Amino acid sequence: MSLPSLRLTASLAALGAATVVLSAPATPAKADEGMWTFDNFPIATVNEKYGTNLDQAWLDRVRNAAVRLQGCSASLVSGEGLILTNHHCVVSCVQDLSDAQNDYVKNGWMPATREEEKKCPGQTAEILTDITDVTDRVTAAGAGLEGAAFVRARAAEIDKIQKEVCGDDQKLTCQVISLYRGGQYKLYKFRKYEDVRLVFAPEFQAAFFGGDPDNFNFPRYALDAAFLRAYEDGKPVSTPNHLTWNPNAPKEGDVTFVAGNPGSTSRLLTMAQLEVLRDQQLPITLIQTSELRGRLLEYATTSEEAKRVSVDPIFGLENSFKVYYGQQGALTDPAFMAKKRAEEQELRQRVAADPALAQRIGDPWAELERAAAAQRDLYLPYRQLESGPRSQLYSYAKAIVRAAKERAKPAAERRAGYSEADIAALGRRLAQDAPISDDIEKIQMSFWLSKTREYLTVDNPSVKALLGKESPEQIAERTVEGTRLADPAFRAEALAMTPEQLAASGDPMIQFVLANDDAAQAVRTQWEAAVSGPTSRAAEKIAQARFAVYGTNLYPDATFSLRLSYGQVKGWTYRGVTVEPFTYIGGLYERNTGAEPFNAAEDWLAAEGKVNKSTVYDFVSTNDIIGGNSGSPVINAKGEVIGAAFDGNIHSLGGSFGYDGELNRTVTVSTAAITEALRNVYNQPRLLRELGVRR
Amino acid sequence: MSLPSLRLTASLAALGAATVVLSAPATPAKADEGMWTFDNFPIATVNEKYGTNLDQAWLDRVRNAAVRLQGCSASLVSGEGLILTNHHCVVSCVQDLSDAQNDYVKNGWMPATREEEKKCPGQTAEILTDITDVTDRVTAAGAGLEGAAFVRARAAEIDKIQKEVCGDDQKLTCQVISLYRGGQYKLYKFRKYEDVRLVFAPEFQAAFFGGDPDNFNFPRYALDAAFLRAYEDGKPVSTPNHLTWNPNAPKEGDVTFVAGNPGSTSRLLTMAQLEVLRDQQLPITLIQTSELRGRLLEYATTSEEAKRVSVDPIFGLENSFKVYYGQQGALTDPAFMAKKRAEEQELRQRVAADPALAQRIGDPWAELERAAAAQRDLYLPYRQLESGPRSQLYSYAKAIVRAAKERAKPAAERRAGYSEADIAALGRRLAQDAPISDDIEKIQMSFWLSKTREYLTVDNPSVKALLGKESPEQIAERTVEGTRLADPAFRAEALAMTPEQLAASGDPMIQFVLANDDAAQAVRTQWEAAVSGPTSRAAEKIAQARFAVYGTNLYPDATFSLRLSYGQVKGWTYRGVTVEPFTYIGGLYERNTGAEPFNAAEDWLAAEGKVNKSTVYDFVSTNDIIGGNSGSPVINAKGEVIGAAFDGNIHSLGGSFGYDGELNRTVTVSTAAITEALRNVYNQPRLLRELGVRR
Repeated sequence: MSLPSLRLTASLAALGAATVVLSAPATPAKADEGMWTFDNFPIATVNEKYGTNLDQAWLDRVRNAAVRLQGCSASLVSGEGLILTNHHCVVSCVQDLSDAQNDYVKNGWMPATREEEKKCPGQTAEILTDITDVTDRVTAAGAGLEGAAFVRARAAEIDKIQKEVCGDDQKLTCQVISLYRGGQYKLYKFRKYEDVRLVFAPEFQAAFFGGDPDNFNFPRYALDAAFLRAYEDGKPVSTPNHLTWNPNAPKEGDVTFVAGNPGSTSRLLTMAQLEVLRDQQLPITLIQTSELRGRLLEYATTSEEAKRVSVDPIFGLENSFKVYYGQQGALTDPAFMAKKRAEEQELRQRVAADPALAQRIGDPWAELERAAAAQRDLYLPYRQLESGPRSQLYSYAKAIVRAAKERAKPAAERRAGYSEADIAALGRRLAQDAPISDDIEKIQMSFWLSKTREYLTVDNPSVKALLGKESPEQIAERTVEGTRLADPAFRAEALAMTPEQLAASGDPMIQFVLANDDAAQAVRTQWEAAVSGPTSRAAEKIAQARFAVYGTNLYPDATFSLRLSYGQVKGWTYRGVTVEPFTYIGGLYERNTGAEPFNAAEDWLAAEGKVNKSTVYDFVSTNDIIGGNSGSPVINAKGEVIGAAFDGNIHSLGGSFGYDGELNRTVTVSTAAITEALRNVYNQPRLLRELGVRR
Repeated sequence: MSLPSLRLTASLAALGAATVVLSAPATPAKADEGMWTFDNFPIATVNEKYGTNLDQAWLDRVRNAAVRLQGCSASLVSGEGLILTNHHCVVSCVQDLSDAQNDYVKNGWMPATREEEKKCPGQTAEILTDITDVTDRVTAAGAGLEGAAFVRARAAEIDKIQKEVCGDDQKLTCQVISLYRGGQYKLYKFRKYEDVRLVFAPEFQAAFFGGDPDNFNFPRYALDAAFLRAYEDGKPVSTPNHLTWNPNAPKEGDVTFVAGNPGSTSRLLTMAQLEVLRDQQLPITLIQTSELRGRLLEYATTSEEAKRVSVDPIFGLENSFKVYYGQQGALTDPAFMAKKRAEEQELRQRVAADPALAQRIGDPWAELERAAAAQRDLYLPYRQLESGPRSQLYSYAKAIVRAAKERAKPAAERRAGYSEADIAALGRRLAQDAPISDDIEKIQMSFWLSKTREYLTVDNPSVKALLGKESPEQIAERTVEGTRLADPAFRAEALAMTPEQLAASGDPMIQFVLANDDAAQAVRTQWEAAVSGPTSRAAEKIAQARFAVYGTNLYPDATFSLRLSYGQVKGWTYRGVTVEPFTYIGGLYERNTGAEPFNAAEDWLAAEGKVNKSTVYDFVSTNDIIGGNSGSPVINAKGEVIGAAFDGNIHSLGGSFGYDGELNRTVTVSTAAITEALRNVYNQPRLLRELGVRR
């Protein structure tokens, strides 16, 4: 049930869920900057710069073929629901379908017939069909109200809008998205498919050749591609609006488009906010991620089975680590910070120079400094007590406990995210069956408890309550061994219980969460009052200032909703070293050492005599992307798919805070390489036929 | 053979050995600030502030009883060579004396007779006997010279001075110490004892109750004390100049002195230097320490024996981690940095206001900015390639390889640290026999190799040369399994070999080091040219500026040589929470949960009915100390020992960069508690008699 690990995860929300993200318009875009919405794409600019002939019909075709997965992006590439995405977007599914006897992560998933395609637990596929402006309704709902009443009225109106259009139809998703930090509210309506099956996944070692050392680097030799298929009523979905598969690689300088769902950017944080990130949140996140990484890496050496079940958690952790490390790299780069400081200074001066504007805006920068100071004090308790461990069982218990508590309140008083519909959706998620490793659960639990004690200290009352007379290891052992939450049937049962029934359930994980939930929620309340609430209000003011000063021809910060970026195939130069934009299949064999993670996959070794070594393998382009874009189709001027974006270079990670056209690059596996692999490595005539290429 | 882990390690040199430390005079001292040399102690100030009657004789008595250990401090406490220090200063020795059958770390070391006291491998005890000013000789030696000739001439003169006074006498140590950043050079002459035996060590769980969670925190309930004894010619040394053991605890407000060897402070780094520390060195050190910590913690769970051999490495690592974390806390505290910035600004303004001074000083701040920029580029290769892994076997190989290379050169061209005398001393260190864990060696090697690949990237030529076609794990396995360096006899043999003989030796660890040593030394040369050389020159200029502006009544930065600090027994208040200065033995039983690391030691549980619970256990005082002070005697106005300093509070770690009298505290285990433990927990009449207290 866990989200696929995003190679391109840049979600600041993952920083212990405690980061305050400002979604706000960026400075007027230069170079190939921008993650544009489909209803505000700079068609004229692009046609002029790249000599293309884009029009609304082109945009509509692309939009109708773009697919949103959990935490990833994808595209329809045949008329029968075939979906191209990254291998790393489906690796959780491959692991879920595997067991100690059949390790499809290691060996690949390549059923010979459509009948053998298997459902990925919890996976959905969503296609954006309509965008409607609902700004007026949302803002009117809050007019004249303050504080909690204001928040509740707006949330209720948003809920109402979503219900009006989608009702309880499980085939639809309606989501009101706040863009430009509340400058706009748009209803995004999606066609949703809940039966998504795994069609093809290469061996992990082919998809992730070079492993963590090569991750976010280039040159690369990774077949990070996989195919899913959308089903409905047990049959493949008919999808006439799909992208045409072009099996030829682009040339240097060719224009490229990336359609996908960038998760989160924070390009408009103030200096006070960036400094708290740099000084506290990122360092602590990097430190904790590193220790956990060390624990899991060492655990993975203890047996073959330990190694197998650790693949996905370690991949996710190492990927996150590198994202945070890249972000920290930007925030500790004196030149980068000087540029951010100059931008802030300019905006503040232009506001100050306009008395009417200054009057309307006030001093949100000072408010954010106060919020940042509060954040320094509250971050550790918030992170440790409220965000909790990366334990799946603990997450189940927490979701169930909180749902029970909220359900006990009248609907109008519940916290956001606990409407009846939300709880029903939770029930569907809890019903998904996926294997759980008790060993890893125990590591996650004991690690979290020991860090909570370390960072909050032994004498902190919440820590005392959490641990009692037990060690972190004892609690981990007792709660993981004793809980029934690994069983979906029990989860369903528990979700129907009242808090009192949960307390009496005798389940040690549920009881552990129950006993400490008040303290966790109390920290959340403090955090909302002193940090996230004031930050949100101040950010809205800064967004207004930017609209007033720079106009509205801007793109909004990423919100894990569909965007289009443009760019071109191009390498880069850094500290005197020039990196070429293409790698070729032959390079894989040169880089192969035979030692993990630089051991070429067995099927590739076997195919060395057959495969065309001059085929373009991976390539880089200037497109502006971020975590969540993984699996995005890379599209040429004709609207054909020429690859699947799967990574950024290390510089692109600073893209969370700003785009640098000289250095930031998208990394893509070419359709040319995928085609060659299906033909001469994996012998998949069935798929080649469906993609419409020569077998 | 490894240095004892310093609970109070603040040695910036440990930051991958790549930190540039400025030893320079601090701003005129306020409050109880200062780690004073014995020949410049502010007697009058202290007598006035605390109503004491200190005089030169008092200082001499204390100096003659103060002992320097490897990385730690200690004191003579009987006429028969008995030495009081911390348990954590001898834990490596206790581990060396243990094996799978006899775990003295776990059970304590408590021989019934003097005959059973055993030698601690490699441990020496040094007592400072004379301080002589040799500034004129050292500076005259370099007069009129430049660059390498200047460095070599000074080093030769220092070597000559040391030889003149100590010759080859193994019972003496002569060390010319640069104080005030070359403002003074003093010859410190020590009486040295090379046969130091373990007399008494409590169970690890008594010494380190509360473990890492309580480390650098207070309240504490730790008996971090142990006894050694100096021997010569097989007999205990007669030591009439010892401190009198006072078995009574001090009261709040009582004056306290700490005599010991603070290792290293950096109170005069410029903002440019502090920012590189904050942005790069400390974050990367914290990250790497954390991952290694995770690996060792998980390894320790795999068997009882794994747990046993991991105790000391994990302790050392967690202790270092917290030191760096505390330092990072100071450097990311906006108020602390603002204060440092203001101090720098003041000095620069006062220099600028004096044209003659400005002319003489130049602009060392700008030079340090350039060095800091170079450091950002060079730090990672320097750290990874030159500093190497924490593997004991690798360190042996590196020392042997470098000695062979330098020995092949004429004496005048050798690098510092490779005189015949230095190589002879190396031979004595290599002869010490201490057990080595192959498992931990492999973890250290593979960890270091994987981080080197990660941080420098796969395509770096040095990384390619280091790894070849192997994985980090394969190299670790091959070099650790194949080497003979665990055998002291082979180390002696190897130390006598030429580089060609080493190459032909067939030893895989030696060959591995040999193959990569040129690249490592090349990075060192770059580093010295662009970072450490220019930094050293600029720092000397800044030190001159400080002398000119603030005069010479200052204390020098710590240099792991004997210092005296003064203060008083006092708690502190932070963020509204007041911490009392004392804990009592009864508190141990209240804090005991039975679960590691809060499980009271067995002997203490057994003694609960007998022990006096109202005895003061640990206490805090305002003394200004830092890593290296571990084991220092805490002394009252009469010159009696009342405790052994073993820790600082978390705020004291910022003491690397500046002392804050409101918050920085020394943590001490009282002689009252040690006496009570010897009497009613461990039943040690032999020791009580020797200490002159009632049995």
